[in-house]
Amino acid sequence: MIPKQAQDKYHTVRQVSLQLCEPLQHEDYNLQCMEDASPPKWHLAHTTWFFEQFILLPYKKDYKVFSESFHFLFNSYYETAGSLYPRPKRGLIARPSLDAVLRYRTYVDDHMKELLQVGNHPNAQKIGAITEIGLHHEQQHQELLLTDTKYNFFCQYEKPEYQSASKDKKNSQSPKPVWIEVEEGVHQVGHDAKSGFAYDNESAPHKVYINPVSLSSHLSTNGDFAEFIDAGGYQRVELWLSEGWSFIKQNNIEHPLYWQKIGEDWYEFTLSGLCLLDLNAPVCHLSYFEADAFANWKNCRLPTEFEWEVASKELSITGNFLETHNLHPQPAPAQPTASGSFAQIFGDVWEWTQSSYAPYPNFKSLLGSLGEYNGKFMCNQYTLRGGSCVTPESHIRKTYRNFFSPHSRWQFTGIRLAKDD
Amino acid sequence: MIPKQAQDKYHTVRQVSLQLCEPLQHEDYNLQCMEDASPPKWHLAHTTWFFEQFILLPYKKDYKVFSESFHFLFNSYYETAGSLYPRPKRGLIARPSLDAVLRYRTYVDDHMKELLQVGNHPNAQKIGAITEIGLHHEQQHQELLLTDTKYNFFCQYEKPEYQSASKDKKNSQSPKPVWIEVEEGVHQVGHDAKSGFAYDNESAPHKVYINPVSLSSHLSTNGDFAEFIDAGGYQRVELWLSEGWSFIKQNNIEHPLYWQKIGEDWYEFTLSGLCLLDLNAPVCHLSYFEADAFANWKNCRLPTEFEWEVASKELSITGNFLETHNLHPQPAPAQPTASGSFAQIFGDVWEWTQSSYAPYPNFKSLLGSLGEYNGKFMCNQYTLRGGSCVTPESHIRKTYRNFFSPHSRWQFTGIRLAKDD
Amino acid sequence: MIPKQAQDKYHTVRQVSLQLCEPLQHEDYNLQCMEDASPPKWHLAHTTWFFEQFILLPYKKDYKVFSESFHFLFNSYYETAGSLYPRPKRGLIARPSLDAVLRYRTYVDDHMKELLQVGNHPNAQKIGAITEIGLHHEQQHQELLLTDTKYNFFCQYEKPEYQSASKDKKNSQSPKPVWIEVEEGVHQVGHDAKSGFAYDNESAPHKVYINPVSLSSHLSTNGDFAEFIDAGGYQRVELWLSEGWSFIKQNNIEHPLYWQKIGEDWYEFTLSGLCLLDLNAPVCHLSYFEADAFANWKNCRLPTEFEWEVASKELSITGNFLETHNLHPQPAPAQPTASGSFAQIFGDVWEWTQSSYAPYPNFKSLLGSLGEYNGKFMCNQYTLRGGSCVTPESHIRKTYRNFFSPHSRWQFTGIRLAKDD
Amino acid sequence: MIPKQAQDKYHTVRQVSLQLCEPLQHEDYNLQCMEDASPPKWHLAHTTWFFEQFILLPYKKDYKVFSESFHFLFNSYYETAGSLYPRPKRGLIARPSLDAVLRYRTYVDDHMKELLQVGNHPNAQKIGAITEIGLHHEQQHQELLLTDTKYNFFCQYEKPEYQSASKDKKNSQSPKPVWIEVEEGVHQVGHDAKSGFAYDNESAPHKVYINPVSLSSHLSTNGDFAEFIDAGGYQRVELWLSEGWSFIKQNNIEHPLYWQKIGEDWYEFTLSGLCLLDLNAPVCHLSYFEADAFANWKNCRLPTEFEWEVASKELSITGNFLETHNLHPQPAPAQPTASGSFAQIFGDVWEWTQSSYAPYPNFKSLLGSLGEYNGKFMCNQYTLRGGSCVTPESHIRKTYRNFFSPHSRWQFTGIRLAKDD
Repeated sequence: MIPKQAQDKYHTVRQVSLQLCEPLQHEDYNLQCMEDASPPKWHLAHTTWFFEQFILLPYKKDYKVFSESFHFLFNSYYETAGSLYPRPKRGLIARPSLDAVLRYRTYVDDHMKELLQVGNHPNAQKIGAITEIGLHHEQQHQELLLTDTKYNFFCQYEKPEYQSASKDKKNSQSPKPVWIEVEEGVHQVGHDAKSGFAYDNESAPHKVYINPVSLSSHLSTNGDFAEFIDAGGYQRVELWLSEGWSFIKQNNIEHPLYWQKIGEDWYEFTLSGLCLLDLNAPVCHLSYFEADAFANWKNCRLPTEFEWEVASKELSITGNFLETHNLHPQPAPAQPTASGSFAQIFGDVWEWTQSSYAPYPNFKSLLGSLGEYNGKFMCNQYTLRGGSCVTPESHIRKTYRNFFSPHSRWQFTGIRLAKDD
Repeated sequence: MIPKQAQDKYHTVRQVSLQLCEPLQHEDYNLQCMEDASPPKWHLAHTTWFFEQFILLPYKKDYKVFSESFHFLFNSYYETAGSLYPRPKRGLIARPSLDAVLRYRTYVDDHMKELLQVGNHPNAQKIGAITEIGLHHEQQHQELLLTDTKYNFFCQYEKPEYQSASKDKKNSQSPKPVWIEVEEGVHQVGHDAKSGFAYDNESAPHKVYINPVSLSSHLSTNGDFAEFIDAGGYQRVELWLSEGWSFIKQNNIEHPLYWQKIGEDWYEFTLSGLCLLDLNAPVCHLSYFEADAFANWKNCRLPTEFEWEVASKELSITGNFLETHNLHPQPAPAQPTASGSFAQIFGDVWEWTQSSYAPYPNFKSLLGSLGEYNGKFMCNQYTLRGGSCVTPESHIRKTYRNFFSPHSRWQFTGIRLAKDD
Repeated sequence: MIPKQAQDKYHTVRQVSLQLCEPLQHEDYNLQCMEDASPPKWHLAHTTWFFEQFILLPYKKDYKVFSESFHFLFNSYYETAGSLYPRPKRGLIARPSLDAVLRYRTYVDDHMKELLQVGNHPNAQKIGAITEIGLHHEQQHQELLLTDTKYNFFCQYEKPEYQSASKDKKNSQSPKPVWIEVEEGVHQVGHDAKSGFAYDNESAPHKVYINPVSLSSHLSTNGDFAEFIDAGGYQRVELWLSEGWSFIKQNNIEHPLYWQKIGEDWYEFTLSGLCLLDLNAPVCHLSYFEADAFANWKNCRLPTEFEWEVASKELSITGNFLETHNLHPQPAPAQPTASGSFAQIFGDVWEWTQSSYAPYPNFKSLLGSLGEYNGKFMCNQYTLRGGSCVTPESHIRKTYRNFFSPHSRWQFTGIRLAKDD
Repeated sequence: MIPKQAQDKYHTVRQVSLQLCEPLQHEDYNLQCMEDASPPKWHLAHTTWFFEQFILLPYKKDYKVFSESFHFLFNSYYETAGSLYPRPKRGLIARPSLDAVLRYRTYVDDHMKELLQVGNHPNAQKIGAITEIGLHHEQQHQELLLTDTKYNFFCQYEKPEYQSASKDKKNSQSPKPVWIEVEEGVHQVGHDAKSGFAYDNESAPHKVYINPVSLSSHLSTNGDFAEFIDAGGYQRVELWLSEGWSFIKQNNIEHPLYWQKIGEDWYEFTLSGLCLLDLNAPVCHLSYFEADAFANWKNCRLPTEFEWEVASKELSITGNFLETHNLHPQPAPAQPTASGSFAQIFGDVWEWTQSSYAPYPNFKSLLGSLGEYNGKFMCNQYTLRGGSCVTPESHIRKTYRNFFSPHSRWQFTGIRLAKDD
């Protein structure tokens, strides 16, 4: 039997997906306003398909798939020619209906519940392990469900609110960042198999040499970034990567994704609608290119993912995660941290690093289709660390490697500066 | 006061739009599976916007628009820079919801009802005239709602049925077409203002010279077109217009839009799902290019719109229209028509003509935004005549000029052959 | 034996192609600055290929092709899959070299000379007929060689001159256009086989009915068009065809192709380099869309090709053709024509008509590959009449139908207004 | 005065560019068969522009630019909006002519000669340093001139030869690769300023930790890669990066760029025309994606750039460079190297590494426009090491970092396998 705790976790995590959908109207479930964003209905179905495909079909006796067409439509893994439903058309799946997808969830959950309760299942360990992957997978999609919905709502002429605005957050004061050295020398990074669950891309643990460097104690703020804009940052070619310059010019990008100037003031679109920009909150929704140009303008650079990981070693994992229900990055306290220690390392925004997403020494892809999971994206993507305000807290680790194309802007992505010592 | 008959017509036509939506599920209302096709929700709202914009706002005292955002989102007319909601994104309008759109229809209908009942309105004549245009406009969108839904359903993996299949239509026999001469000489074509409503593009009436020509008594059938395919028609470059050849090669087109070969047999997707192809029914869902290549293969040509119009002069307007509820073209009786007269001239399929859509002598565009209606499309489009199985019967006229780009295939478009005598 | 006159004509026409190349530098021969424009080297080779392919190979005993690769590279006719060298890559043909192409011309000319002198060749009539087509084909390419070179030179940063500027043409005075009626009623149009050579697209002759209409005695001028620009013509959506509006907005078009404003004055790039715009010369290098919008702004329209043809019936074919060496449209005399007759009907600029390029009744395509010549372009193109300042005079006829896509601007295309009476 | 040796080097390197052009015909100089490849004429002019722009203009008294238009056309550096001649259109620069470009070279060389001979020039050191950069820059373009010409010739229907084929190279025998460990631990990498010239991207020197790894003693061969193809390597999605799979499927890639199967045998296009493939020669003209998939298939991986650099530390820089005039990678001797040491580390092919091209700690971009040189490409490119058969020997260093997009195939790019120990 799978431990009771794991059974409970299954129930809890699966429930969160439905809770996150509560503020949606029927039409919102099928929206896909850009290729990268999937409709909520698809997220609900795809995360369910994962359990059907990788657990129920191989391990539950006599299990029958809920529907052959679901099996095809909500699979994002098998890339063999012709057999994958095209990603940009996920918003065009009118049938099956939302109701059918909800019935699918119940059907699979019922079967999973049965399976997890079986005593002495010969594959109990495997089932437990894949269930854990499936729940982490679902948590990733919970984050995406919120970032995708934010983008979809932003594209609506009526600019709807996902939740009502939080109060008086505009009275924040400016945090005072300091530089904190990362210890030079050889360090071990990556996930040690003994310390619980991790994705394949966090292994094998290995040694790196950290050259002299300091990281900022705090995230860069909206106020910092507004100064960059005022200084003509988006017009100064010498600050930009060549590919970044083409990107911002072709797409007429002149500010972070959700910013909008009304009169003299910057506003930003949030999951609580259009709000006055809090200059002391961390800047977010930046491409790697914008983060890099900002760092250049500051005569700094972005940290490597290992500098970040070593810096985080002694800290505890707390912060502004999904569970705070802010669904938006929050300003740090105005006072410098007593001991000069890091703030906002976890939660708030994913921190761009200058590390290209690449395999660790002795990286082994998970076998079979699960192997499509991580390794195949190890090209032209950059690693981000620390989680964001829409990441479930139990999903994050110090060794956790998120990754996006340097063009991506719809995630809660931000900046922590580094400088060579 | 607007005549009671016109008031009734308003009510009747508006009701048809809702009736046509009855078979839809909630998700279907927002579907837009290609740029040319608009979602049903948009059709319902846009046709309503027409009455608000061109009648209620100018002529109803103290009328208040239902919503400023509807006014923006459901306008397809004003092309001034930046102010038109982009057509390809109509399927991304999650908000307003379907419920709100239905409330919009009720709101506008209530106001229209009031206005049409006003005694001695100083603008009664104008109101009556524009109402008539608005209802014809709505009938056009009723046809589009069905052709767009057919396309949207075709794109669903589950291939849903809009209505259940009609029975035993496959026992039809082959019609025997004969050639019928059109009288050579000077003829008047176009709409005579005295004979009721017509669009601006049907005026002014004028003279044309018909050179010696005969038209086929019947539409070309699926059987005829299957022979063209079997004869390698889609592979013989010499049969095709240059632009047509590029079009079919780039899009891998090898049969009419909704055909599908299963084993040895041709099937076609219909509003009643996938059906065995009836070889004696008129072929439809062809581009102009396919119609032209087929005619070349037959050593014939497509008629001009004036040859068609003169040919139709003595016939009465009856046929397989929307009201038959077939929603699909039907085979003609197998026997040749007693008197050698035309069959299937009205209804079944829109008949491609070789006439480019162009202004008639003394064509005057309707003033103002209504002027965007017709004239601005008079380039790179071809005229089609006679209405189809999803055209409301009361919408059609002998002088009626429909027009589409030669690439269009999602309308019920077919072929009547012509040959020079 | 082919008549001596025909032999001489062969020699003369072939020589013109070489003479037109004299001002070119070596690098100019291989230039292709847009897809529609072919490099001069290609024109020289392709026109030669025509004689090799359609005359020498079938009719000259023991003729050997000059080179198999030439045969492939300089063929623009056979569209069978995979076997046609792609048009946009004509500028990438470095090998064969220009020298080799000139040797190819000599080789083919020598063989043609021999063949044309053969007494009693059993196919003498056919050879004569195809030679005539081949020479008209070459004259078309002579015009293209100049229009393509104009475009290629315009794209050079150094803006080279093809020939030195003609003098004092800026002292012209404004012509005074008058309206001239075209006789209403039934007229015959198209080419009568008895009156010498014509392309297939000019047959069969047939009757048309001309409704009441007048045409302008003169072409519209640069001055007229500058007024249209000053009146905001390029910003007024209501003047434009829908497709035209998209075209000018997507391509940022705000004036005729070669115009450039320097300070307060308009200049235009010509084959003699950048010159001050002569306001009294005919406006040229306009798309159909611009011609149509201008006509709308004038409350006029473009003529049909038959209105033009009937209007030209009594005129003799003289005008500003290639042989004047102006290579640019010229202003008409300032005085109205004595008898109110037409000016500039022939030469100066190709006149856009509102007639879509379509087959005449009983149109028969030339057989075989020559059949690809004309008929296959009868879609989404508009007819132009009268020849231009770079058309060889002996190439033009009253029934001559030129045709281009409505987007085309690099030909010498202009406007003669029409209005319904 | 600049040292005599430097003066001589200026002369020698500049001459090589002209020598490399000797086999070209006039038309070849202006060819640009894809965006990435520049025409030889452009290379000749651009390398000359470098000296005019960065040395003569700032440091030579009264120097006058040869031509303002050259200054614009042959600049690839200033990316400020609107002022850079578009790269894909370099092949459309007919004017200036080749002759003018050759005069430009002479003009600049004469001025450089004068300047380099000036005694006690106050900026002698700077001039010397930038001259050195300029000559390395020219050597890079010499390599490009050959790789671009190879591509341009490949695109010619006639498949011309740049040089005549070398003899009997097909009798080679198979090298026997062995695995060679790289010493684990902390190593210094990057360029030490004391050891002569290097680009900015090789600094600052810093420490890295090498985890246990072995590299293959030899490059992977054509024979190895043919086995990958025979094993269905291009059809097995699980071997490929996601972006690589899209790339090969969209572009129908099924073998290295210049391979062609004729009957049963593989041929490859070389600078000596089409040759039978030598199975024992190193495979080349592979994208990063193909190199990575091949390594996966071998259960190996690509090395990091630091593993390569550490492995090369004790070796001397000799190999199959430009100066051998092979212009093609050569098979290694069949015998294993006596001491189990590396073969083919330098020359033959650029070796793909899995290292994304990124700044070293304390990287400082060169100031001003020279700063556009290297740093701005540090995104979505991968580092290659060791030089190729068309790299001038004096151009290469152990710390030299070449970089290309993972899609690039037209460089001489190949594979050395690595495996984790």
